[in-house]
Amino acid sequence: MQIGMIGLGRMGSNMVRRLLKAGHQCVVYNQDPGPIRDLEKEGAIGAGSLSDFLGKLERPRAVWLMVPAAVVDTLLDEIVGLAHAGDILIDGGNSYYRDDIRRSEKLKKSGFHYVDVGTSGGVWGLERGYCLMIGGEKETVQRLDPIFSALAPGLGTIPRTPGRPKPGSTAEQGYLHCGPNGAGHFVKMVHNGIEYGLMAAYAEGFNILKNANAGLKQHEQDAETAPMQDGEFYRYDLDLGEISELWRRGSVVASWLLDLTAAALGEDPKLSAFSGRVSDSGEGRWTALAAIDEGVPAPVISAALFGRFASQGGGEFENKLLSAMRKEFGGHDEKKGGH
Amino acid sequence: MQIGMIGLGRMGSNMVRRLLKAGHQCVVYNQDPGPIRDLEKEGAIGAGSLSDFLGKLERPRAVWLMVPAAVVDTLLDEIVGLAHAGDILIDGGNSYYRDDIRRSEKLKKSGFHYVDVGTSGGVWGLERGYCLMIGGEKETVQRLDPIFSALAPGLGTIPRTPGRPKPGSTAEQGYLHCGPNGAGHFVKMVHNGIEYGLMAAYAEGFNILKNANAGLKQHEQDAETAPMQDGEFYRYDLDLGEISELWRRGSVVASWLLDLTAAALGEDPKLSAFSGRVSDSGEGRWTALAAIDEGVPAPVISAALFGRFASQGGGEFENKLLSAMRKEFGGHDEKKGGH
Amino acid sequence: MQIGMIGLGRMGSNMVRRLLKAGHQCVVYNQDPGPIRDLEKEGAIGAGSLSDFLGKLERPRAVWLMVPAAVVDTLLDEIVGLAHAGDILIDGGNSYYRDDIRRSEKLKKSGFHYVDVGTSGGVWGLERGYCLMIGGEKETVQRLDPIFSALAPGLGTIPRTPGRPKPGSTAEQGYLHCGPNGAGHFVKMVHNGIEYGLMAAYAEGFNILKNANAGLKQHEQDAETAPMQDGEFYRYDLDLGEISELWRRGSVVASWLLDLTAAALGEDPKLSAFSGRVSDSGEGRWTALAAIDEGVPAPVISAALFGRFASQGGGEFENKLLSAMRKEFGGHDEKKGGH
Amino acid sequence: MQIGMIGLGRMGSNMVRRLLKAGHQCVVYNQDPGPIRDLEKEGAIGAGSLSDFLGKLERPRAVWLMVPAAVVDTLLDEIVGLAHAGDILIDGGNSYYRDDIRRSEKLKKSGFHYVDVGTSGGVWGLERGYCLMIGGEKETVQRLDPIFSALAPGLGTIPRTPGRPKPGSTAEQGYLHCGPNGAGHFVKMVHNGIEYGLMAAYAEGFNILKNANAGLKQHEQDAETAPMQDGEFYRYDLDLGEISELWRRGSVVASWLLDLTAAALGEDPKLSAFSGRVSDSGEGRWTALAAIDEGVPAPVISAALFGRFASQGGGEFENKLLSAMRKEFGGHDEKKGGH
Repeated sequence: MQIGMIGLGRMGSNMVRRLLKAGHQCVVYNQDPGPIRDLEKEGAIGAGSLSDFLGKLERPRAVWLMVPAAVVDTLLDEIVGLAHAGDILIDGGNSYYRDDIRRSEKLKKSGFHYVDVGTSGGVWGLERGYCLMIGGEKETVQRLDPIFSALAPGLGTIPRTPGRPKPGSTAEQGYLHCGPNGAGHFVKMVHNGIEYGLMAAYAEGFNILKNANAGLKQHEQDAETAPMQDGEFYRYDLDLGEISELWRRGSVVASWLLDLTAAALGEDPKLSAFSGRVSDSGEGRWTALAAIDEGVPAPVISAALFGRFASQGGGEFENKLLSAMRKEFGGHDEKKGGH
Repeated sequence: MQIGMIGLGRMGSNMVRRLLKAGHQCVVYNQDPGPIRDLEKEGAIGAGSLSDFLGKLERPRAVWLMVPAAVVDTLLDEIVGLAHAGDILIDGGNSYYRDDIRRSEKLKKSGFHYVDVGTSGGVWGLERGYCLMIGGEKETVQRLDPIFSALAPGLGTIPRTPGRPKPGSTAEQGYLHCGPNGAGHFVKMVHNGIEYGLMAAYAEGFNILKNANAGLKQHEQDAETAPMQDGEFYRYDLDLGEISELWRRGSVVASWLLDLTAAALGEDPKLSAFSGRVSDSGEGRWTALAAIDEGVPAPVISAALFGRFASQGGGEFENKLLSAMRKEFGGHDEKKGGH
Repeated sequence: MQIGMIGLGRMGSNMVRRLLKAGHQCVVYNQDPGPIRDLEKEGAIGAGSLSDFLGKLERPRAVWLMVPAAVVDTLLDEIVGLAHAGDILIDGGNSYYRDDIRRSEKLKKSGFHYVDVGTSGGVWGLERGYCLMIGGEKETVQRLDPIFSALAPGLGTIPRTPGRPKPGSTAEQGYLHCGPNGAGHFVKMVHNGIEYGLMAAYAEGFNILKNANAGLKQHEQDAETAPMQDGEFYRYDLDLGEISELWRRGSVVASWLLDLTAAALGEDPKLSAFSGRVSDSGEGRWTALAAIDEGVPAPVISAALFGRFASQGGGEFENKLLSAMRKEFGGHDEKKGGH
Repeated sequence: MQIGMIGLGRMGSNMVRRLLKAGHQCVVYNQDPGPIRDLEKEGAIGAGSLSDFLGKLERPRAVWLMVPAAVVDTLLDEIVGLAHAGDILIDGGNSYYRDDIRRSEKLKKSGFHYVDVGTSGGVWGLERGYCLMIGGEKETVQRLDPIFSALAPGLGTIPRTPGRPKPGSTAEQGYLHCGPNGAGHFVKMVHNGIEYGLMAAYAEGFNILKNANAGLKQHEQDAETAPMQDGEFYRYDLDLGEISELWRRGSVVASWLLDLTAAALGEDPKLSAFSGRVSDSGEGRWTALAAIDEGVPAPVISAALFGRFASQGGGEFENKLLSAMRKEFGGHDEKKGGH
């Protein structure tokens, strides 16, 4: 079928490529015309402006937005001014699900159909396919099924879960209509929250392995340094690259994130290209907020989130205050220097 | 080659089966003779007593213990009384790595070689192979290579990590000599610690998804209940079984633990067979202890561990004291009833 | 000066009493007339209706609301319909500071002055005085100074902080103009967040003391129970009531919350009147949300919050899923029974 | 009565002063003779060597050690070689309680009595008195009662807990016989663990207050920075010094640690003298270990501990690995620069 794609960054361009490969017609538009030219060579239909873009799409149109969350509202307003009732507008980016609820209600009043799609796959999606978490009206989502099906990974070589396939379910193809508007990005949000927790679990574990040689190091002996407990049990120089590779096969902790970890550690076990400032991009925060709103405990996901904040320097004043208190009650001067 | 296996529980018996399939000769012994009979039918050589068992093994013997950690020391003492210098004794169970260090030093004095093997694979090992984390002297470990190689999963269908294979490395076959004695169980311990963190990340995420309908529920309104914040954003009835299946393909959180989660949730999305008392079996505790000894932060793994303690009732008095304090300063009576 | 108080629950009534004692004139109103009668006997001027109440107050009026957060908006609407521009409306309850910002902007348009006051003191305020955290316009707050001064504890017997008093500061009297509207409840919110963390620190510590006899207990030995590590070091039967009393004098952890803990544990060291379901009333949640919005780590406060959620049953499904995963990969049946 | 004190650092010297003031005879010894001279001027009896020290003490001797935990064992060995059965040896420093158990068993065989005393009070003890947590045999502890009573704060101006005094209890005097050997340092250990949690709760809260102006700051807008959520609600410039002073009176979070915080923040609200590297000195670690051994949750105390490890740089590799994973799956380059 025909689909229009706005936003030809790494994600958007690769999604167009995957759709073209599956035989779909793609009309593409982007602020910077460079990626339009590239995709035209691969079979896409380029557009020179938003109105040109909309003009090249048959009605009712299907328009997929793959742009930064911050510009979605503005872009939707522009599109609504040029498009027609009955058109489908799809936000495949990283929007907060609450924005989906608001937008869908507003767009519905003008006769537009809105679909929110949480898209996982990153730089690997072109090859592996994109895992799609979809929110919206049933009919609209069904109309887009050929698009979702082409973007998604499909069954692939991944073994079937016992009891599968379920009649009518697309889950094992790697895409799913999760519920009404917002449900797609809600599920994607929690997906990313879990991702934070998983990443932190591996990171802590490998850090413990890396410091398994702590008993071999010279330790300072002063009142401001806790003595190394049981140093004779920490005399291992472990090869993290080899261990990450090992666990990929037959262990309980095997995962795609571990595959990536093995690749990173295999290349440079010291990870010297990195400084350790870990960004966060919103979904982890929203997941923690959701847990709090729901009144359910999420200590692991929030510990992972707070670890990132600390790596960004957000805990600096906390730590200064702790040193200040120690000085007040114990006369302890702050120790200089590292771990 | 020939190997003796003591301890024919689910793990030990299946490991013998995998070794027999690979053409190795297995002499087997167990307290309860039932499993011996079963394995004899499949080609193993049964033994009627420990001395019979040792007598049937050629010297220098290779004896693999697959017994509860609590009985290893006693059993080793018995074996040492009957075996001979030069024999290899392998502990493939869940020993604390510090016990390995102690045992290996003691056994070395009598001329025995000791190898510690952390074994991951659970009930799936027969089919998938066992991921083996090995500690001991280089020569001894090399002598056992055919055994490790047969038990391990091998390359299988798992894609190679870029830059692999590394010359001389067995990691991508699923077994690895990690370091001197204790290193095998140390790496296995951290593996399990990571496992705790991963499991908790999924569990929290799915719990947030399950409670995405919190805004649809009737909430009590009293001074002892925090009002539901933003209830209009929590109106999703999500299908956890479908979502867990979905994420298995193309998502960042795909993993073997997710495969298992999809199987469990697919069978019963309410998990009504379980009460929610989560056991812990030592390794998570030891991992947290190691982080503390090393002076490295492990908030995620320890939060996962403490969550299990709480599920076992270990926090009961803490919570009573919190209620008591609230009563003291605010006159708050404890609210009865659940979530 | 004259002030009107609406809402004569435990907090409101006691505040009126404290104001009367300081010589202020108090006009009081309440839905249920009972408390009005009581306070009339102590010198307050009762009102039979909201309009009667407002009629008895001189203009520009000062009206203090001490009602549940959920009814503040409705009540303010009613008052605005009957009162006059220039009147001061004070919310002394537990409102979310964001509601203060919204309300103050709206009321300003009609010429009203709005003040938000976070009030700490609980059932002890009558005797000890109320710690007041105030947000609003400078002039309005200053006009109310006699009221705040009467409600606050004053210097009392608490030793002065070095460098005090600061000219013009009321902080050491126990009340403070913290900033523009919302600042009062913001500071109160964080106060309560800290309170959650402090309470949890004590609760964990006393729980560790209580379980210092763990090595004396019979422990089950099965594959589903982690063996008691180092049981010989946990043979103390400690008297928690005595220890809490002890720490009140000269220790680093002395505090008012510890005073209350000593009272509770002194009365019943087993706290058998409590079941351990710990309520939360909003401020802890909001504090965690603020930390997340600000991008600063708050692992301790959020761990305390999540502990309460767990005590309320919010983690039930998480735990079931953990048990289900353990069953899937290890064939572990869930263990029944307690700690 | 007469007592000997070895170790005349800040703690030991001040304890001697407090004992002298109470009329006790103090024989003092120290490696560096400087403090001996000082205390002689104040009435103590100085000793020139360990044997001189022991010779000046009447038998059965009472010898109090106030030396670094690392040298206690060596010193005890020397003393035992020179002293006599029936003498009492007191360790008032920061020993691990497990060392007390070991030492007391060993010393008992030679006829010595051993007492472990956890001492809280820091630089303030001379003035406020020392809170003493005592472990040992009943008779020995009773014999030392005059010493403990003189060191402890006594009732002071702190209000009595309802139901007090308890007959025969010294708790409200600020010292307590907690149990057999090790119990004193065990209770002190948990005291310090609680202290970690309390300190972190305050530090987090004040950090949230400090960042209440986050919405006023310019925020970078790029894919690696989570957008500031609800920035319009974070426009407060709060005076932390004033707020810490405010809470000292009538609030639920009043405590001695808050008194110290108010002093520190009053002097320099930016705490610019500190870098934020927070030391830990062992007891926090041991408290967390105890919780794990006992199987009870301690998420708050351990989060506080792990925060210190992170401030010391212990999480550096964890964070590098997180950045590396993000690069692998999302092509995210690490962002440079601070909070």
